[in-house]
Amino acid sequence: MLRKLKMGMVGGGDGAFIGEVHRIAARMNGGIELVAGVFGTNREKSLECGRNLYLAPERIYPDFIAMADAERALPEGERIDFVTVCTPNRLHFAISAKFLQSGFHVLCEKPVAMNLGEALELETIVKRSGKLFALMHNYNGFPMIKQARKVIASGQLGELRKINVEYSLGWLAAPNAGKQAAWRVDPKQAGISGCMADIGTHAENLIRYLTGLRIVEVSADLATFVEGRELDDDGSVLLRFDNGARGVIFASEVSTGEENNFIVKIYGDKAALEWHVQTPEELILRSNDAPIQILRRGWPGTGEEAAKASRLPAGHPEGFLEAFANLYDAFAGAIRTGIPGDYPGIDDGISEMRFLEAIVANSKGDVKWTKIGG
Amino acid sequence: MLRKLKMGMVGGGDGAFIGEVHRIAARMNGGIELVAGVFGTNREKSLECGRNLYLAPERIYPDFIAMADAERALPEGERIDFVTVCTPNRLHFAISAKFLQSGFHVLCEKPVAMNLGEALELETIVKRSGKLFALMHNYNGFPMIKQARKVIASGQLGELRKINVEYSLGWLAAPNAGKQAAWRVDPKQAGISGCMADIGTHAENLIRYLTGLRIVEVSADLATFVEGRELDDDGSVLLRFDNGARGVIFASEVSTGEENNFIVKIYGDKAALEWHVQTPEELILRSNDAPIQILRRGWPGTGEEAAKASRLPAGHPEGFLEAFANLYDAFAGAIRTGIPGDYPGIDDGISEMRFLEAIVANSKGDVKWTKIGG
Amino acid sequence: MLRKLKMGMVGGGDGAFIGEVHRIAARMNGGIELVAGVFGTNREKSLECGRNLYLAPERIYPDFIAMADAERALPEGERIDFVTVCTPNRLHFAISAKFLQSGFHVLCEKPVAMNLGEALELETIVKRSGKLFALMHNYNGFPMIKQARKVIASGQLGELRKINVEYSLGWLAAPNAGKQAAWRVDPKQAGISGCMADIGTHAENLIRYLTGLRIVEVSADLATFVEGRELDDDGSVLLRFDNGARGVIFASEVSTGEENNFIVKIYGDKAALEWHVQTPEELILRSNDAPIQILRRGWPGTGEEAAKASRLPAGHPEGFLEAFANLYDAFAGAIRTGIPGDYPGIDDGISEMRFLEAIVANSKGDVKWTKIGG
Amino acid sequence: MLRKLKMGMVGGGDGAFIGEVHRIAARMNGGIELVAGVFGTNREKSLECGRNLYLAPERIYPDFIAMADAERALPEGERIDFVTVCTPNRLHFAISAKFLQSGFHVLCEKPVAMNLGEALELETIVKRSGKLFALMHNYNGFPMIKQARKVIASGQLGELRKINVEYSLGWLAAPNAGKQAAWRVDPKQAGISGCMADIGTHAENLIRYLTGLRIVEVSADLATFVEGRELDDDGSVLLRFDNGARGVIFASEVSTGEENNFIVKIYGDKAALEWHVQTPEELILRSNDAPIQILRRGWPGTGEEAAKASRLPAGHPEGFLEAFANLYDAFAGAIRTGIPGDYPGIDDGISEMRFLEAIVANSKGDVKWTKIGG
Repeated sequence: MLRKLKMGMVGGGDGAFIGEVHRIAARMNGGIELVAGVFGTNREKSLECGRNLYLAPERIYPDFIAMADAERALPEGERIDFVTVCTPNRLHFAISAKFLQSGFHVLCEKPVAMNLGEALELETIVKRSGKLFALMHNYNGFPMIKQARKVIASGQLGELRKINVEYSLGWLAAPNAGKQAAWRVDPKQAGISGCMADIGTHAENLIRYLTGLRIVEVSADLATFVEGRELDDDGSVLLRFDNGARGVIFASEVSTGEENNFIVKIYGDKAALEWHVQTPEELILRSNDAPIQILRRGWPGTGEEAAKASRLPAGHPEGFLEAFANLYDAFAGAIRTGIPGDYPGIDDGISEMRFLEAIVANSKGDVKWTKIGG
Repeated sequence: MLRKLKMGMVGGGDGAFIGEVHRIAARMNGGIELVAGVFGTNREKSLECGRNLYLAPERIYPDFIAMADAERALPEGERIDFVTVCTPNRLHFAISAKFLQSGFHVLCEKPVAMNLGEALELETIVKRSGKLFALMHNYNGFPMIKQARKVIASGQLGELRKINVEYSLGWLAAPNAGKQAAWRVDPKQAGISGCMADIGTHAENLIRYLTGLRIVEVSADLATFVEGRELDDDGSVLLRFDNGARGVIFASEVSTGEENNFIVKIYGDKAALEWHVQTPEELILRSNDAPIQILRRGWPGTGEEAAKASRLPAGHPEGFLEAFANLYDAFAGAIRTGIPGDYPGIDDGISEMRFLEAIVANSKGDVKWTKIGG
Repeated sequence: MLRKLKMGMVGGGDGAFIGEVHRIAARMNGGIELVAGVFGTNREKSLECGRNLYLAPERIYPDFIAMADAERALPEGERIDFVTVCTPNRLHFAISAKFLQSGFHVLCEKPVAMNLGEALELETIVKRSGKLFALMHNYNGFPMIKQARKVIASGQLGELRKINVEYSLGWLAAPNAGKQAAWRVDPKQAGISGCMADIGTHAENLIRYLTGLRIVEVSADLATFVEGRELDDDGSVLLRFDNGARGVIFASEVSTGEENNFIVKIYGDKAALEWHVQTPEELILRSNDAPIQILRRGWPGTGEEAAKASRLPAGHPEGFLEAFANLYDAFAGAIRTGIPGDYPGIDDGISEMRFLEAIVANSKGDVKWTKIGG
Repeated sequence: MLRKLKMGMVGGGDGAFIGEVHRIAARMNGGIELVAGVFGTNREKSLECGRNLYLAPERIYPDFIAMADAERALPEGERIDFVTVCTPNRLHFAISAKFLQSGFHVLCEKPVAMNLGEALELETIVKRSGKLFALMHNYNGFPMIKQARKVIASGQLGELRKINVEYSLGWLAAPNAGKQAAWRVDPKQAGISGCMADIGTHAENLIRYLTGLRIVEVSADLATFVEGRELDDDGSVLLRFDNGARGVIFASEVSTGEENNFIVKIYGDKAALEWHVQTPEELILRSNDAPIQILRRGWPGTGEEAAKASRLPAGHPEGFLEAFANLYDAFAGAIRTGIPGDYPGIDDGISEMRFLEAIVANSKGDVKWTKIGG
C-alpha cells in the first residue's frame, strides 16, 4: 500500500526563507511528510519551529548527529526516508556525509561544499553509501527549462556558439543587508566565494543542464564593491566551452534594484532561445528566417517536456515553488523506484566547485585563461 | 496543542484540474490535511483517486450524503473540519446545504449556485447553520490584487470613473473541447449561462473585491459562436456603477489562442491601475504627471498588503496556486479563530447571481439597460 | 524629368502638433515640398510660421479661399499639386470642397466632416471634381497593420468572431487641458461627438481597414466625466458585424495615465491577432495548437506587406511618423500615376460619420440596438 | 533671411541602408537640402541614385576629390555647407580629411577611421581646418538616452558600479550575408576589427556618452565563428573604469535570430537604469526601496532632456530615424551658430579607436588586462 515518504530537515529555521521553500515544495504533491528536524543552532527556536510544523517533540533534535543516530535507530517505515540539508554552506559536507553514512538519502542545498576537496570526498561517500544524493539547483525544475533542454538536445538550435547568462540581484547593495546576507560573504560560512558561490553556481549549473557542454577555460573579474566584505559580491566571467562555443556569465548581488534577474540566452547556428526567471512560463525561440516563437508552459504545440513538469493549464501562472517541487518529485520518485531521475547530483556539485576554484584563482592572477579540469 | 485541520472534498476526481488545485492549495501551508472525500460519481475511479491521495478507504464515500452523515457521526477531532465542493455548478447548492446543515464549514467553487433563488436560500442556510462559508473566487488571493485593493481604498486613484475588464480564453473555440468544456455549456449542469457563469463571474467578483462599487445597470450582448451549444460561449457587458463610474466586461471562451487572459484596468480621476493574471507579480500604476510605477510583489516600497500574502522574496515568481492557497489560509484561519477573514462569501455568491440573471435577461431583450437590485 | 510634388497646407500653425506631423511625413521620402499655406487664423502667427518653413512670403495666404484662388491662377508646375487640411473639424468640409472645386487634390484630417450630411455632399464634390481625396487615418499606415490586413485577408484567422478595440488616453482627465483639448469637446468646433469623433473613429476605421467587415448594429454608452463639457469624453460601444461577428470599442480621453493606448485584438475561429500602437513593430499571432508567433517588421518570414511599408531593417524602430509618411507616399504615388492607392478616402469618411451618428443616437435612447445603414 | 543648409553626400548609394537613413534624418526637420553627392563607385548607379534624389546632374560627381574641388569653387550660398560621409570604413579618413581641408564641415559615419593613427591625424586636421566634425553614433540621439544621461549626471544613481552592455545581431550568422555584410569582415575595408568595429564601438560610445566614465583596462575574447572570415564576428570584453566600476560588453553579429538587440544596464549604489533600443521610448529606473519607475518619452514627470529631443506626444512612437535626425539637428544648429553642440565628435572617434586597438591586442595575447591610454 501507498505510504508517504518521511522527510527530515537540517537547517531552515527562523529567518531562512529557503527552509520554508523546501517544506512547501515537499508538501506540494502530497506524497512527502516532514517528521523530524533540527531547525538551527538555537535549541529554543528550533523546538518552536518544529512544533509549528506539527512535528512530534521527540523528533526535534538538538543537532544533526543526534538526529542521524536516533533516526537510524527507528524501525523502518517510521524513520525518515531522506533528509534535506539547508544550512549555510559550511555544514553541507559534514551533514550530508553523516546522513549518507547513516543510511539515508540526502537532498542538499547548493553549493555542495566549501571547496572541491570536500566535493570529491562527498562523491566517494555517496558511492560507498549506495544512497541517493540530490543537489538543489532549483532552476532545473522549471518546466520551460526542461523544454529548453529538449529543444537544444533535439538539435533545433544547431551547433551552439554563444551562451550569455546574467544573474543580478540588488539585495547586497548596501553594507548591512541582514543575517541571511552576512553569512554569504563570510569565508568561514560560505567558502572561497560569495556572490559566485551563491548565484554564479546557478548560472554554471543551468548552462550545464541545458546544453551538456563543459566549460574548459575561464577568465574572470570578481569584485567586492561594499567595503569590509571578504568575499566577492559581484563578478563577470568569460567562458570557453569544449565545442568551441564562447560565453559570458555576469552575476552580481549589488545590482541595485534587481530582484532576482536570471536570464539565459543561448545561440546556435540555426536558432536561439531565451528564458527569464521572472517570466518563467515563456521560452523565446528565434531564428533568422521566421517569426519569433513564444513557447508557453502547458500550451499545445509547446512540447512534452514542459507539460510533464506542469500542474496547471497554460495561463494560470506557475512559479518558483512549483519548479522546486518538481525536483522534490523527481527525487521522491527516485527514492521509491531506486532509479536516479531528473535532478542534479554530486557530479553537478563537483562541476560547480571546479568552476568556482578556477574563477577565484583566475581573478586574482595576471594570466588570461585558466583551464578547468575534470 | 496545534493540530492540522481536517478537510473533506466532494468532486475534483479524475480529469478535473480544479480538484488538484484545491488539494495543492490546501497542502501548501502545511496546516490542512485531506482525510475524506467523494471524487466523482464513478465509484471505482473515486476509490482509486482517494487511495492515490493516501486516504483511508473507509473515508472514500459513495456519495456526498453518505459522507456528510458518516463524518458527522465521527468524534470531534477525527471528523472533517470543513468540506471543499468542486463539482459542476449543478450540485453546489445541494452539497453546500447538506454539509452546512450537518455542522460543517464549507468552501465552494464558484458560481455559488444555478440561479439567484438557490443563492438566496443558501444564504439563509449559512446564517442558520452558524458555520462559515467561503466561495472560491481565487483571483482575490493574488498578492498584487490585495495590494491593488488597498491602493484603491486609500484614495490614491481618486474618484473611480472607468473599469475595463477582459477575460479571454480560447479553449472552447472548437466544437469538441472535452468533458470539462461540455458541462460548462450545458444548462442542466451549468445553469443559465456558460461563459459568463464560468469566467464573467470572476470579472464581476474581482471588480467588487477591488473597488467595493456596486453594478447598478447592465447592457449585455451574449453570444454563442459554436453551433449546437445551448449557452453563451462569449459575451460583452456595458456597466454602470453606483458612484457614476462606467465600465465594460468582455469575456470569451472562444477567443482562439488565448490561454487565460484576465486583465483589469481601473481609472480614477487621479491615477489608474492595471493588472494581468499572466504577469501577476506586477501592478501598474499610472498618473498624468509622473512616471509609470511598477509595484512588484515582495519589493520594498510596494506595500504591506502584497507582502502579507507572499511566501517568497520578490523576483522568485509566485502564481496561481499560491493565490489559491492564500484563500485556503484565510479560511483556515477563520475556522481556527471563528472570525471570518479575507475570502469571498455567500454575499459574493448572491451578487454574482444577480449579475448573471441581469445580463442574461438583458441580452435577450430590446431594452437598453437592466437594473440590478440588491 | 522627375520633379517634387508641391504641397499646400491649411491649418497646422502654432501649437497644433498634428501640423508638424503632416509636414515631417510629407518631407520624409524627399518627393514633396511645402510651398504654400495658411497656418491659422492669426495672420501674424501664420506669416511667422510660414517663414520658419522657408515659404516665399507671397504664398503665405490670409485665408483658404484666397489661397485656393491664387494657387489656381499660378502656372502648372508652379502651383500646388495638393493641399493638406488640418484645421479643427468644423472647417474640413468647406476647405476640402473649395480646393477640390478649384482643381486640387486634397488630403484631409479625420473626421471628414461635422456630420453625415456634409460627408455625403463631399462625396459628390469629390466625384465631380475628378480629383483625389485622402482622409488621414494614419494607423492604416503602420507596416504591421498592413501585414495584419494581409493575414486576415489570407484567411489565416478563419471566420472572424470577435473584435475588441481599446483606445485610451488620459490627456482630458482634468478640466483644463489646453487649447488643443478645448475645441475637441466643443460642439461648434468638433461636431456631434468629442472623444468618439477624435479617437473612436480611428477604432472604427482600423477595424474597417483590417477586416473589411461592416458594423451593422451598435449599442453605446457615451459619457462625459468632466463637468461642463458638452460632448462625450469617454464611451463604450457594443458592435455587431455583417458576418455575425461581435465586438467592443471602448475609447476614452479621461483614462488617467494613458498616453495613446490603442490596442486591437481580432479573433477568428482558427487564429487571432493583436497589435498595440505603443509597440507597433510587433504583430502577435495566436492559435490553439501552436506557440505564439511574434511577427516583427522587416524580419524574414514576417511577410511582404510590412516590408513594403518599411524604411529600416528589423530592430531599428520605426514609429508614428513613418506610418504617417507611408500614407503620404501612397497619396503622392496616386497623384503621380492618377491611380488611387492604399490610403483611406471619402468612403471611409462616410463610414465614420454613419458610425458616429448611430452611437450618439443610441447612447441617448432606451433602445438596445441601432442599425447602421449604408 | 532663413535659408536651408546645403548638404553633400559621399557614399550611401544603391543597397546601403544607412545612406537613405542619413537622407531621411537630414530632411526630417526641413532645414537641410541635399544638393550634391557621389553615391558609390559605379558611375551609372551613382548618377541614377542622384537623379532619383532630385539632384542637378552636374552635382552628381565622379569621385569625392572632384566633388570637394568643384563645390569649393562654387559661390558661397550655392556650394554645400557640409558633407556626410557614409562609405565603408576604409575611406572615412581620406574623405573627411579632403572635405575639411577644402573648407567644409563634415559628418562622418562610425568608426571614424581604420586605426588610431588615422584618428589622431584626423584630429589634427579638424583642429587646423577650423571646421566642425561630427561622428554619427546615432544612439546618442534617442530622447530617453539623453534623459538617462541627465539622470546619471544628476547623481540619482549614486556612485556607478557596474555597466553591462549587450549588442546582439544575427545577420552574419550564415556565411554569405550579402555585400553589406562582406565588407564589414574584410580587413581591407573595415580595419582591424569586424563586429567590434561595427557595433562594439556603439557600446563603447554609448557608455562614454551616458556616464562620462573612461575605460582604463580591458580583457577581451574576440571570436570568428563563420569560417573564412578574417575578422571577428563576435566578442566579449570585461571592462574596468576610472572610478573603479566594472562592466561587460558583449557584442555579436552571429547571434541567430536577434534583430538589433542593444541593451544598456547601469547600476549605481543608489539606483539603476536600463534601456533597450527595441523599446526606445522607455527608461527603466530601479532602486532597492521603491517601485520600478518607467520614464516614457514625452510624458509629464519624465524630464526635460527627453522632451527637448522629441517631436511627438508620448504614446505616438518615435524611433531610430527621429534619433538620427536629432543628431542632424544638433549638427545643423552648430553650423548655423558656430557653436559645437550635443553630437559626438573627433574625441569620440579617438576613444573608439583606442578601445578597438586595446581589445584586439588583448584578445590575441595571454595577458589578463590591457590598459587603455589617452
